[in-house]
Formats: sequence, structure tokens, C-alpha cells
Amino acid sequence: MSDPHPAVSLDDVVHQRTRLGVLALLNSGVSLEFGALRDTLHLTDGNLNRHLKVLQEADLVGSERRGSGRPKTWVHITDAGRSALAAELAALRAVIAAAEHAPDADG
Amino acid sequence: MSDPHPAVSLDDVVHQRTRLGVLALLNSGVSLEFGALRDTLHLTDGNLNRHLKVLQEADLVGSERRGSGRPKTWVHITDAGRSALAAELAALRAVIAAAEHAPDADG
Repeated sequence: MSDPHPAVSLDDVVHQRTRLGVLALLNSGVSLEFGALRDTLHLTDGNLNRHLKVLQEADLVGSERRGSGRPKTWVHITDAGRSALAAELAALRAVIAAAEHAPDADG
Repeated sequence: MSDPHPAVSLDDVVHQRTRLGVLALLNSGVSLEFGALRDTLHLTDGNLNRHLKVLQEADLVGSERRGSGRPKTWVHITDAGRSALAAELAALRAVIAAAEHAPDADG
């Protein structure tokens, strides 16, 4: 039991469930409006803002204000975000496989 | 974009990466010794203890002391833990599928 488990390679910045949801939603490449992200992920404004800040500081998403009068914030995934999400999905697949084929050894 | 995203159904108690690793390792049904869990997941004693406490309070794992002289702590998954892990793995599969087939709609 000394090999590292695939869970070791999960990155908290991407793994945290709200941020994972944001990146998964943006992965198609389209920009999504702040309110659509918030409602789809069942979040408050403050909660989504907090997680977007973490993702932006890690350069995994970017945002821009669009529209005149009452501009809205649109969020998109970056190339680094797409890579980080791909690594997370690969790690998740390994965790799922490990959980389903857990060895029958006694310690 | 108003349907809830599958990330909404991820449960932080089980989703947090260390706890997910612990449950995945224990899922075969064997008890694992504290030190084996700690080393396999690259944790400190304190970190593993903190997460085991969360899992035990949620009744997802149990533990017992075994051995005379210097008894060691052995940890096992409960039926509730197995159910919670199964729900998490199903939600993860849905998140992976959503991320890989993100709709091409513009918000």
C-alpha cells in the first residue's frame, strides 16, 4: 500500500465542486453570462464571485463586461483552464476506477 | 441554461479530495491501518485525523484499535459510506460527461 493513490493528483483549485462545475460548463468554449452560471450551479452572487476570483487568479478563466447601459459580465475558460480541467477529469477517472476495483489485500 | 448542473449534486463531505481518496481506498471492504492510509494518500497524521473525524461524524467510516502493547488504529467503510461514495461516483461520471459534451449554445 505505498503507491500514491490517484486522489493525490487532484488539484483543489479545480477539484472544489463549484469551481469544477464552472470549468465544466465553460469547457465548450462559449462565454457564459454571470447570471446563467450562478443559476445553473444554484449559487448566490457572492459565492460565485468568490470562486471566480480563485479561478481568475489561477488564470483558468477570464471575464469581460459587455453591453451598454447595464453591462453584464461574461466568463470564458482560458487555455490553461482547459488543460487543468482535462487533468482533473483524467484524475477523476482514475479515482473512479480505483474505487471500483479496490484491491482485496489486507493492508 | 436553467437546468441544474450535475456538479450541484456533489456533496462536499465526500467530494473533498482527501476524503474521496479515503473512501475509495476503503471501498473494497477491507480495514486499512491508519499509517497505510496516511502514506498512500501522502498526508500528515494531523491531516488524516482531521478528515477521518469528518467522515466518522457523518458515519461514513468507523475505526477500531487493534493489537496489544502498541495498538494501531484500523479504519473501515460503513454501509452509509459505501452508499455515499456510490452517489459521488455517479455524480462525477455525470460531471465528466457534461464537461466533455458541453452544449454549444450561447448562454
